[in-house]
Amino acid sequence: MARIGFIGLGVMGQPMAEHLVRAGHEVTVHNRSPDPVRALVEAGAKAGASAAEVAEGADIVITMVPDSPDVEAVVLGQQGVLEAAREGVLLIDMSTIRPDTARKVAAAAAARGVRFLDAPVSGGQVGAEEATLSIMVGGSPEDFEAARPVLESLGRTIVHVGPVGSGQTVKAANQLIVAGVIELVSEAIVLLEAHQVDMQPAIEVLAGGLAGNQILERKAAGMLARRFDPGFRIDLHHKDMQIIQAAARDAGVAIPVTALVAQMLVSLRSLGRGGLDHSAILTLIEDLSGRGGSRSPTAGQA
Amino acid sequence: MARIGFIGLGVMGQPMAEHLVRAGHEVTVHNRSPDPVRALVEAGAKAGASAAEVAEGADIVITMVPDSPDVEAVVLGQQGVLEAAREGVLLIDMSTIRPDTARKVAAAAAARGVRFLDAPVSGGQVGAEEATLSIMVGGSPEDFEAARPVLESLGRTIVHVGPVGSGQTVKAANQLIVAGVIELVSEAIVLLEAHQVDMQPAIEVLAGGLAGNQILERKAAGMLARRFDPGFRIDLHHKDMQIIQAAARDAGVAIPVTALVAQMLVSLRSLGRGGLDHSAILTLIEDLSGRGGSRSPTAGQA
Repeated sequence: MARIGFIGLGVMGQPMAEHLVRAGHEVTVHNRSPDPVRALVEAGAKAGASAAEVAEGADIVITMVPDSPDVEAVVLGQQGVLEAAREGVLLIDMSTIRPDTARKVAAAAAARGVRFLDAPVSGGQVGAEEATLSIMVGGSPEDFEAARPVLESLGRTIVHVGPVGSGQTVKAANQLIVAGVIELVSEAIVLLEAHQVDMQPAIEVLAGGLAGNQILERKAAGMLARRFDPGFRIDLHHKDMQIIQAAARDAGVAIPVTALVAQMLVSLRSLGRGGLDHSAILTLIEDLSGRGGSRSPTAGQA
Repeated sequence: MARIGFIGLGVMGQPMAEHLVRAGHEVTVHNRSPDPVRALVEAGAKAGASAAEVAEGADIVITMVPDSPDVEAVVLGQQGVLEAAREGVLLIDMSTIRPDTARKVAAAAAARGVRFLDAPVSGGQVGAEEATLSIMVGGSPEDFEAARPVLESLGRTIVHVGPVGSGQTVKAANQLIVAGVIELVSEAIVLLEAHQVDMQPAIEVLAGGLAGNQILERKAAGMLARRFDPGFRIDLHHKDMQIIQAAARDAGVAIPVTALVAQMLVSLRSLGRGGLDHSAILTLIEDLSGRGGSRSPTAGQA
């Protein structure tokens, strides 16, 4: 069992840290707000007053925070992980951030003798609670093997996808496909409804062929019913679209459809729907087609 | 067993007509070029000199021709189906055409006492050969039930999706999603390759999550290997994009991403790649990203 420092106890981080405690690790946690820290202490963790305090004496430090600047703050900033981490410590960032930020943090860590993996996850809150996350890991093969036993307490599919930054790039590709497919399924649904097609058998036959995808499987029923309670909020997917677009720009890769879908997420936030599930892209296609009237006027505040 | 007239013996129609012969139906066939007619006659069918001749004495007439004008020609034109079909005959158009053309043909048929179903298919040449097609049927429930035993010799998933035109609308939605997802997977692949990600595990983890789709399952390996032998040709998907856009325009539905993907298919044809599999959308994303150099200069003629 390892001594693990865990920083960031949000909707994802809290259940993940609990799984590590339950697996028998000696876990010290830190979070900006105190409530989830209390919950973890009750579960058997220790509390650290800062990222640095959590990193002291740890073999492994895991960060699970909202965005690129947050990772920089808790790792590189004052009272951050690198102020206190021993040489040889393995730092695993499981946040979804820009690949170039991952590489920058890895370089700063290496300069202090700290090893680094980027290991973003997919599977959402349910995946975190049930320890069924998919974990996409970038870094050296040796560090990946060292992290694997710990990651196996958190997820079901754990893959090494290349050097530092690769995990974030694969997560970016994941979010690119998810947003785009939601948009395509939205176009299909609005088109089919406008033509008075029977939606149930239509979705079934679409899901069974080459058009088949997980959005049709898991999201179409909610979209047909106009249920947009999150799930994964448009605000968060909007953040991820900025990461994707930065990663593509850095590599000189043109992503014209994703750029267009990113603009739709900008519109949805401006329309007050940032708190809805990302499947609410459907509502924008409805609005653009003059078919938004059926939507409940309170949907924007759901 | 029924007396069936079958018009259009292309790569799809020929194996479909053969399945109907094998199922014990009395099949009369017609095709513009004579070679496939000979093959069907050897298999036990009769040959008709025109669409009208095929329709004479038939209980059911099936059309499987390339495009909307072809359906109008063989049904409404001189020596066409409606010149000869008895009252009460069931006409099943299995071509992929515009929903409004299906409704127009259905109205002309009704004026002659001929019943009409639009029943486009998905599953491609392999699905036609193995009788595993998905068949999306628009028309009255009674006509659908009358057609079902015959359609069951041709496909595995046979669904009634609404009134006349609905089958074509669902097929349009299918092609909309397929083209769009190929484009998204192309963006993802070019982005991941540009970042030197290990592609095998990356595709695997993407396919296993919310981004999972049949293009990743069935097409990504060929795309990674730059193998673009069809399959389903860009030329044909380009035709389908015009059907989709007409169906959306008719209903006042905005489909911004599909409109952009349709433009990409226009470009691919202008670049001489219309004969490649539709997964060659990847080559356009590569070109747009200055990464087309690795492509074989003969790919355009494959």
